Amino acid sequence: MPDNSQQFASDNYSGICPEAWEAMAQANHGHDRAYGDDQWTARAADHFRQLFETDCDVFFAFNGTAANSLALAALCQSYHSVICSETAHVETDECGAPEFFSNGSKLLTARTEQGKLSPAAIREIAVKRQDIHYPKPRVVTLTQASEVGTVYRPEEVRAISQTCKELGLHLHMDGARFSNACAFLGCSPAELTWKAGVDVLCFGGTKNGMAVGEAILFFNRELAEDFDYRCKQAGQLASKMRYLSAPWVGLLQNDAWLRHAEHANGCARLLAELVSDVPGVSLMFPVEANGVFLQMSEPALAALSARGWRFYTFIGAGGARFMCSWDTEHARVRQLAADIREVMTA
Amino acid sequence: MPDNSQQFASDNYSGICPEAWEAMAQANHGHDRAYGDDQWTARAADHFRQLFETDCDVFFAFNGTAANSLALAALCQSYHSVICSETAHVETDECGAPEFFSNGSKLLTARTEQGKLSPAAIREIAVKRQDIHYPKPRVVTLTQASEVGTVYRPEEVRAISQTCKELGLHLHMDGARFSNACAFLGCSPAELTWKAGVDVLCFGGTKNGMAVGEAILFFNRELAEDFDYRCKQAGQLASKMRYLSAPWVGLLQNDAWLRHAEHANGCARLLAELVSDVPGVSLMFPVEANGVFLQMSEPALAALSARGWRFYTFIGAGGARFMCSWDTEHARVRQLAADIREVMTA
Amino acid sequence: MPDNSQQFASDNYSGICPEAWEAMAQANHGHDRAYGDDQWTARAADHFRQLFETDCDVFFAFNGTAANSLALAALCQSYHSVICSETAHVETDECGAPEFFSNGSKLLTARTEQGKLSPAAIREIAVKRQDIHYPKPRVVTLTQASEVGTVYRPEEVRAISQTCKELGLHLHMDGARFSNACAFLGCSPAELTWKAGVDVLCFGGTKNGMAVGEAILFFNRELAEDFDYRCKQAGQLASKMRYLSAPWVGLLQNDAWLRHAEHANGCARLLAELVSDVPGVSLMFPVEANGVFLQMSEPALAALSARGWRFYTFIGAGGARFMCSWDTEHARVRQLAADIREVMTA
Amino acid sequence: MPDNSQQFASDNYSGICPEAWEAMAQANHGHDRAYGDDQWTARAADHFRQLFETDCDVFFAFNGTAANSLALAALCQSYHSVICSETAHVETDECGAPEFFSNGSKLLTARTEQGKLSPAAIREIAVKRQDIHYPKPRVVTLTQASEVGTVYRPEEVRAISQTCKELGLHLHMDGARFSNACAFLGCSPAELTWKAGVDVLCFGGTKNGMAVGEAILFFNRELAEDFDYRCKQAGQLASKMRYLSAPWVGLLQNDAWLRHAEHANGCARLLAELVSDVPGVSLMFPVEANGVFLQMSEPALAALSARGWRFYTFIGAGGARFMCSWDTEHARVRQLAADIREVMTA
Repeated sequence: MPDNSQQFASDNYSGICPEAWEAMAQANHGHDRAYGDDQWTARAADHFRQLFETDCDVFFAFNGTAANSLALAALCQSYHSVICSETAHVETDECGAPEFFSNGSKLLTARTEQGKLSPAAIREIAVKRQDIHYPKPRVVTLTQASEVGTVYRPEEVRAISQTCKELGLHLHMDGARFSNACAFLGCSPAELTWKAGVDVLCFGGTKNGMAVGEAILFFNRELAEDFDYRCKQAGQLASKMRYLSAPWVGLLQNDAWLRHAEHANGCARLLAELVSDVPGVSLMFPVEANGVFLQMSEPALAALSARGWRFYTFIGAGGARFMCSWDTEHARVRQLAADIREVMTA
Repeated sequence: MPDNSQQFASDNYSGICPEAWEAMAQANHGHDRAYGDDQWTARAADHFRQLFETDCDVFFAFNGTAANSLALAALCQSYHSVICSETAHVETDECGAPEFFSNGSKLLTARTEQGKLSPAAIREIAVKRQDIHYPKPRVVTLTQASEVGTVYRPEEVRAISQTCKELGLHLHMDGARFSNACAFLGCSPAELTWKAGVDVLCFGGTKNGMAVGEAILFFNRELAEDFDYRCKQAGQLASKMRYLSAPWVGLLQNDAWLRHAEHANGCARLLAELVSDVPGVSLMFPVEANGVFLQMSEPALAALSARGWRFYTFIGAGGARFMCSWDTEHARVRQLAADIREVMTA
Repeated sequence: MPDNSQQFASDNYSGICPEAWEAMAQANHGHDRAYGDDQWTARAADHFRQLFETDCDVFFAFNGTAANSLALAALCQSYHSVICSETAHVETDECGAPEFFSNGSKLLTARTEQGKLSPAAIREIAVKRQDIHYPKPRVVTLTQASEVGTVYRPEEVRAISQTCKELGLHLHMDGARFSNACAFLGCSPAELTWKAGVDVLCFGGTKNGMAVGEAILFFNRELAEDFDYRCKQAGQLASKMRYLSAPWVGLLQNDAWLRHAEHANGCARLLAELVSDVPGVSLMFPVEANGVFLQMSEPALAALSARGWRFYTFIGAGGARFMCSWDTEHARVRQLAADIREVMTA
Repeated sequence: MPDNSQQFASDNYSGICPEAWEAMAQANHGHDRAYGDDQWTARAADHFRQLFETDCDVFFAFNGTAANSLALAALCQSYHSVICSETAHVETDECGAPEFFSNGSKLLTARTEQGKLSPAAIREIAVKRQDIHYPKPRVVTLTQASEVGTVYRPEEVRAISQTCKELGLHLHMDGARFSNACAFLGCSPAELTWKAGVDVLCFGGTKNGMAVGEAILFFNRELAEDFDYRCKQAGQLASKMRYLSAPWVGLLQNDAWLRHAEHANGCARLLAELVSDVPGVSLMFPVEANGVFLQMSEPALAALSARGWRFYTFIGAGGARFMCSWDTEHARVRQLAADIREVMTA
C-alpha cells in the first residue's frame, strides 16, 4: 500500500514519526483521566510554554481546519471580517470552515507578493469599506510558512502587527508549517510570534510527524477566555486527550520538531539545487520552507506523472508543487530530480 | 501515571486496545493518500458494510460530540427540534454541540423509564406544540446502550421507529456504547439498527479501545447527501485519515469490537453479582451493558473515595456509577466489590 | 374584517394608535436619508435617552423576536447559556430564535414564582454545572411585565442584578410589556432598569400601539460595540428607518406610551374586579399589568368561545388568558365580564 | 426635514406611496388576528398568485436583506456556495447576511457584463472546484433589475436556468427592483420568473413605495417546506402582519406597482436623454430600469454636490449613480439635467 512515488505529493501523506509514536506508546499504559486532565497534556502545554518563553494558553485540536477556524472565531464576531491572502488555505481549502465556526464572518482576500501579505495590502482592504453594509475587518491571518513555501521574516511580521494595531485588528498565524519557517530562519519561535505581535498561533503537528493534532497558542490570553468551552462545543475536545498531547511531548522534548523541519527543508533545497540547471525548469517561488514549486512544460509534467510521480498542479498551467516531509529520502529526491531532467530534455 | 484505581471512573479512561494499536502500526509505513482516499479507509468502510449486511454510507469523525452533532444536523434544520431523553449525553454533556452544529435546533427532552424513551413519551413531546412559534420536531435520538446502562431491544427500537414514521421524524442512534448493546443482546448489528428502522447510527470506537474516532453510518442514504462536505467544513475530516480508519479495521476484522464489549459487560455483571448481597447496596438500573449504578450510603461512597477509587456520582444522592471497559481486570473488580462490602458494613 | 370579540385574544391583535399613526404621516413627506441616518431616528433615540435619564445606546429592530435574540447574542457566545424562566417567551414562543441568533446558546429554564425569577432560582441553575461539558451561564433574562402579568419591583430587579454580578452574569430585560410594568409601579423607567442593574432592555412598541418595531437600549454601552453591524447582518436594519422611529417619537413625546399602558392595565383591573365575586372563577395570578388569567370550568370556557370570545388557554386545564390593550373598550370589558358570569352560573 | 435634493440619492429615500398608505389606513380598524392569520395577508398572497398566474407559496419579510438571505438559506446548506455577480447586493451590501442566515455558505463571485451574469460565467465558477475542500455550488442568484440598472431578458433568464439545471443549481432572483424590470420589458411577471425557470423570487416592496416589506415567492414549492418556521426563527414574522401585507394589496390590486415602476423608469430615461448631448458626459450602462449611471469629470461631480445634489459614487472614479423612484418629479429631473450641463460646461 505505501507508495514511495507519493513522497512529494503532500507533507500530510507522510506517516507518524518515531518520536511521536514512541510517546503514544508510553502514554498507552493503563487508565488515565480524560478530557485533558492527564499528565501528558499538562506536560505538552508546559513544553510549549518553555519553547515559546512565555506563559501562553495552550489548547489542542484535532486538525488544522478546526484549529484555525476556532481561533479565528475567537477573534471576531459573525459581522466582522478576516483579512487573508488570496491563496490562504482558510480561503481556498477549508470548505467554508471559518465562515461556519464564526457563524458567517467573511474572508476578505488581499493581494500578495510571493504568497505573503504586506502592511500596504492589508491596509488597502481594511480601509476600503467602513460602513455597516459591509463586514467590519477585525482579524488578519498570516500563513507561516506560506502556501507557496515562502517565509515571513520577524521584521515583516512586526510591520504587519504594527499595522494591525493601528487599524484595530487582531493578528492570527496559521502555522501548519510553522516548524519549517523556524527551521529556515533559524530564529526562536518567540521572535516569530508574540515578540513580533502575533496574538494567536496555530502550530501544526500533523505535517511535522503526528497522526493528528494541532496546538493553539494564545499569547494574548484575554482572547482565550472560555476557549475551552468553544473547543468542547465544536467537537474538538478529545476524550482520550493523552493521545493528542503525548506526541507533542515526543516532538518537543528533544527538538525533534525542529530537526524534522530542517530535514524537510533540506530536501526541498536539494531538489531545487539539483534541477537548477535543467533547461526549461524554473522556480516559481524562492525555496524557503519544504515545498518546491517548479515551472515546467505541460508535456514534461505529463511524462513525470507517467513515471509514477504524484504532485499537485493547482498553481496554474505548467506549475507543479513538490512537498518534502520529515521522512523524505535523499535518494528519492535525487531520483525525482533525475527524472525531471530526463523528461525536460526528452 | 497510569492509576488502576481509575479503572471504574469511565470507559474513556482506558487506553488503546492491542488490535487497534497493531493496525495503526501497520498503517504507519511510508506515505499514503490523505483525506480518506487511502486503502485503510476503504477497508474499514467495507468492514462496516459487511458487519451491518447492507450498503450503507460510512464516514469517520474524531469524536462522539462531533459524530452525533453532525448526524443530527444532517437530519434537521435550525428551526427543527430533536427529541431526546432527559439524560441523553447530547443534552447533558456536549456543551450545546448539537445546537451549534445545527445552528440552533432545540433539544426537547422526553421522560424515560430506566433511561429509555418509549413511543408514548416521544409522541407526547412531538404533538405537544404544533405551531410555528415552537421548533418543529424532526428527529428522535436514542442512546444505545443508554446513559444508565440499559439496552433497547430490537422490538423496542422497531416500535419507536414506527412512531417516528407516523410523526414524520427521522431516527438517530447514538451508539457510543453500541458494541455493549450488541454484546448484551446477542443479536446482529443489522437487527438493532436499519432492520429496526434506524436512519443513522454513530458507532463509538473510543470507548471500545480506539485512541480517537467514531463512525457515522447512514442506512438511509438519501440523508447522507453531501455529508462529506459537512464533515470537512466542520473540522472533522482527518488529513492522515488512515490513523482513524486503520484501528477500525483492527477492531472489526476479527470481531475484537464484540469480544471487548463482552468482556466489559461481563465485568459489570461480575461486580453487580459480587455486591448483590451487600446490605444497603442496591442496583439503580438493571445491569445490561458495561455500567453498574449502585445506590449506597453517602458515607460509604466517601469511604470508597478515600480508599482511592474513582467513580462518578452525577446520578443523584447516594448513587455511584462504575464503568467497565475492554481492559478492566477481574481482580480489580473483585477488589472493588470487597471494598464496597467493607465500607457498607463498617 | 375587524372583529371586536378578538379584543381580549392578544395585545398584538390591536391596531396602530393615533399618536404613532400621526407621526408616521408626518414622516411621510418627500425623501429622507435611509438606514437610520434621518432626523426621526435621531429624535426617537434622544427621546429614549431623556426618558431613561441616561446616555444609553439605542437601536431599532422590527420585532421582539429579533430584538431579544440580538441582544442576548450580544451578551454571550454560542457555548454560553441564558438563564430564563420556564415560561419565558424566548423559551416557549420564539421557535428557537435565541439559539439561532447566538449560533447555539442554550436556554436554561429556572423555576419561577408567579412567573418571576428570584435570586435563589437563578443561583441554583447557575451553579448546578460548572464544567466544560455544559454551556456556561452568562446571561439572565427577565420578562417585565412577566408572561403571566406580574411585575418585578425595583428591589426585586436589584436583588437579581446583585446575584448576577456575583456570578458573572449579564442582565437582560425583555420589555415587550415594559410600559405596563412602569404604569403599574408608577416608578421611572430608569429606576426599573439601569438604576437596578439592567444591562440591556428591549422596549416593546408593537403591543403599545405601533405597527412594528422594538427598541433596544444598552445601558452598559460596552456591550453595544458594533451592535449596528449585528443588526444589519441579521436583517434588522430598516432602509426606510423613519417609519420605525417616527412612531416612537409619537409615543414618547407626550407620554402616550404611559397613558396607553395605564389604560390597558386599568381595563385588566376592571375585568378582574367585575368577575371577582363570580362563583367558580378565580385569579391564577395577581393582576398587575394588562393580562387577566382566570381559572374557570372547562364547559364555561367552551360556552364563552361559543359566544364568540377569543382568548388563549395555554396556561393549563381551565385557565384562560384575557389581554387588554391600548384600545380596549370599557363597554367590551363589561360585556365580557357579564358573559363570564352567565356561563359560570349556567 | 424632507429634502428634495435627495430625490436621486436612492430609491429607498422615497416615502410611502398613496396606494400603500391608504391600504394601511384601511387595515387599521379594530383588532385583527396576528402572525399572518388575517384577511389582508390572505388577500395579498392571492394577489401575488393572480399576478404570477401560478399557485406559488408566498411569504412576507421585513426587508430585502432578510428576504434574500432566508431564501438563499432555504436553497443550500452551510457547506454549499452561492454564485452571484461581483456587484451583487448580497455580496457587497448585506454585511455578510447570507453567510449568517445560512451558517456559513460562501458567495462565489462571477464576472458580469453590464452587471449581468451569463451561462458561461456561471459555468466557469461552478466547475472550477469540485472537491470537498471547497464549498459545493448549489444556487445561482440573479439581481433583476441589476445593481447597474440593466435588465435580464426572459431568454437570458431561460438560458441561465438551463445551465443551472445541468449543473444541479437552484435559481434565485433578487427582485428588489423587479417591478422596474417588468416595466421596462413589458412582459408578464410569470414570463420573467417561473416560466423562465426561476425557483424563488424576492419581490421588493420598499423601493416601490412601501414603508417596509418584501415578498418571497416560491414557484418551486418543495423548496418552501417549513419556510414559515424559518422566517419565525429568524425574527421575520411580524405579529401585526396586516401592516406588512395590506400595503401589498394596495400596490397590487390596481397595478400601482407597475405604474410606479414605469414612472421611475421614465424619469431615468428622461434624465439620460436630457444629458445625452452634454459634452464629457457618457452613460456607463444602458438605461433600462430606474437608475442612470453617468461618467463625468470629478470636478463636475464636486460642483454638483456643492449645488446640493446627493448621489452615490461607488461605481469608480468619475462615476455617479442617479436613482429615480415612484415619486420623482419631472421638474426635478430637468433641474438636475440642467445643473449637470452647467457644471460640465463650466
